[in-house]
Amino acid sequence: MTTVNRQIVLAARPVGLPKPSDFRLVETPVPGLTEGQFLVKTNFLSVDPYMRGRISEAKSYAEPVQIGQVMVGGTVGTVVESRHPGYQAGNTVVGYWGWQEYAVVDGQGIERFDTSLARMSTTLGVLGMPGMTAYFGLLEIGKPKPGDTVFVSGAAGAVGSLVGQIAKIKGCRVVGSAGSQQKVDYLTGELGFDAAFNYKEVKDYDAKLQEVCPGGIDVYFDNVGGPLTDAVFTQINVGARIVVCGQIDQYNATRPPRGPRLFWHLIVKQARAEGFLVFQFAGRFREGQQQMAEWIKEDRVKYQETIVDGLEYAPAAFIGLFHGENMGKQLVRVSG
Amino acid sequence: MTTVNRQIVLAARPVGLPKPSDFRLVETPVPGLTEGQFLVKTNFLSVDPYMRGRISEAKSYAEPVQIGQVMVGGTVGTVVESRHPGYQAGNTVVGYWGWQEYAVVDGQGIERFDTSLARMSTTLGVLGMPGMTAYFGLLEIGKPKPGDTVFVSGAAGAVGSLVGQIAKIKGCRVVGSAGSQQKVDYLTGELGFDAAFNYKEVKDYDAKLQEVCPGGIDVYFDNVGGPLTDAVFTQINVGARIVVCGQIDQYNATRPPRGPRLFWHLIVKQARAEGFLVFQFAGRFREGQQQMAEWIKEDRVKYQETIVDGLEYAPAAFIGLFHGENMGKQLVRVSG
Repeated sequence: MTTVNRQIVLAARPVGLPKPSDFRLVETPVPGLTEGQFLVKTNFLSVDPYMRGRISEAKSYAEPVQIGQVMVGGTVGTVVESRHPGYQAGNTVVGYWGWQEYAVVDGQGIERFDTSLARMSTTLGVLGMPGMTAYFGLLEIGKPKPGDTVFVSGAAGAVGSLVGQIAKIKGCRVVGSAGSQQKVDYLTGELGFDAAFNYKEVKDYDAKLQEVCPGGIDVYFDNVGGPLTDAVFTQINVGARIVVCGQIDQYNATRPPRGPRLFWHLIVKQARAEGFLVFQFAGRFREGQQQMAEWIKEDRVKYQETIVDGLEYAPAAFIGLFHGENMGKQLVRVSG
Repeated sequence: MTTVNRQIVLAARPVGLPKPSDFRLVETPVPGLTEGQFLVKTNFLSVDPYMRGRISEAKSYAEPVQIGQVMVGGTVGTVVESRHPGYQAGNTVVGYWGWQEYAVVDGQGIERFDTSLARMSTTLGVLGMPGMTAYFGLLEIGKPKPGDTVFVSGAAGAVGSLVGQIAKIKGCRVVGSAGSQQKVDYLTGELGFDAAFNYKEVKDYDAKLQEVCPGGIDVYFDNVGGPLTDAVFTQINVGARIVVCGQIDQYNATRPPRGPRLFWHLIVKQARAEGFLVFQFAGRFREGQQQMAEWIKEDRVKYQETIVDGLEYAPAAFIGLFHGENMGKQLVRVSG
């Protein structure tokens, strides 16, 4: 009996904000295993803002997904059948096999996940790419010092919510922006942010930042870009570090986004703006994961997941990121 | 007999490009000395692009020059009379007493200059602020490695011409932009730049940069800002360092300059843009001066000075900076 594999493929290259019709669900037979391969059934897949760049034609750090190809992305699943000596049915494994129910893999780019450590979804969030992005981005690029004011945009998202909590652990004053009152309450009420605001209800970003960061900003962890980032430049302190992590404000732009020229502020404030990709720190992921796991155990880091059920809802969950529908890490439960 | 002091004061706050009428020459009597003071006669004064910021009302790293005040700036001169135990007539001294023939000072912010080391004008150029800007900006912010491609804008200026030569000493491939064919010839013919172009004759900066930096750009020493800098962002390599030293393209802007949003490139290229003020490195100036003096002696660093004669021409020399009239360091000889 042939098993049917449901997959979400890229149907069209999105123009601006992706639409459901840019994706298509297809059914293909799962091929039989040859020696050295094993079959994985997906439990969770991750949707992340960076994927917008991966489905655009623009030159970036990786080849774009082609039309008709399965959408890329981080996944965690369970081995259902194996002809690979290193894996057996029942193992939980993590990889990048993308938006599909099943995948035949050979172990390349796949890692075992120890389910006694944490529940498997965390490998796509707090212990995975977003967690490592927050951990290394803040600590290695932002270099926060005790007493610094750290401002985080997109603060209720998978990365931002962790950045703020790590900054608190490091003795900083932490301020965040997010897109709803519920998120703002979560930041200040649950996560210990010193202040937060709903950017959608702020007309004058400069004035708001002066109010919530009266001592200026020493570290800006930028997930967003655009006009809010412009305003931050007017509020940075001497020696400020701007961690350029994401620019979600622009990912769906249909013409090259323009804004004020800001470099003069970098001179006057002797400040630094630095971009990074989490893979820069791949050699240190174990260190980051161990530290994050320890902080979670000590209840010093909390994380939240927004989970939708069903592979067919992956495109909607992905598109929802750009509307700020997620709190913390957005996941799609595919099975189990 | 009272000595008359001729001074250039700020007459009006410039709007856009400064005009001669924004400055005024006044004559005041030189006051008599009290104990602990000495009288200096100016030999050379420096005009530099940064002064545009000092006469603007915009918030910056220092208080702006007020209307009626003597223009600020670096100076070198000769002690003509002293009631200070540390100084005697004939000493050559360096300071910031600004655009005037004479100054009564108390030694605060004044340093002795050893005329056996080099001729006195160098203390305003290659061994002074521009030299230290080039030295520490390139080495400490740009961190060039052998084999790197270093691109310098404003490459024939006081700072840029030194940046390129230091980068060559450090084993880099060096490319510069300047505003005339004469300057381009000087860069490639005299200073050893590997390539250079006249930005005024280039329509497509992207294409030109691809041509002169076929391996991409590892270090960008930015004296200019604006559209040329925008183009550099599209040509940077992974791990690039952008040294934000000056933004002369914008100093005379009458409305906030706008341009493409560029931070996405910092992420994709894991790159850094960092501003600085030379005063950050004040504690290490002696090291920088000794190294520069040694390189000059070894003929590994050349420098050029453009000198106009007469205090009354200081405003014109300053305004000329924005038209690219200077080759290397622009100075005004006030006396001697």
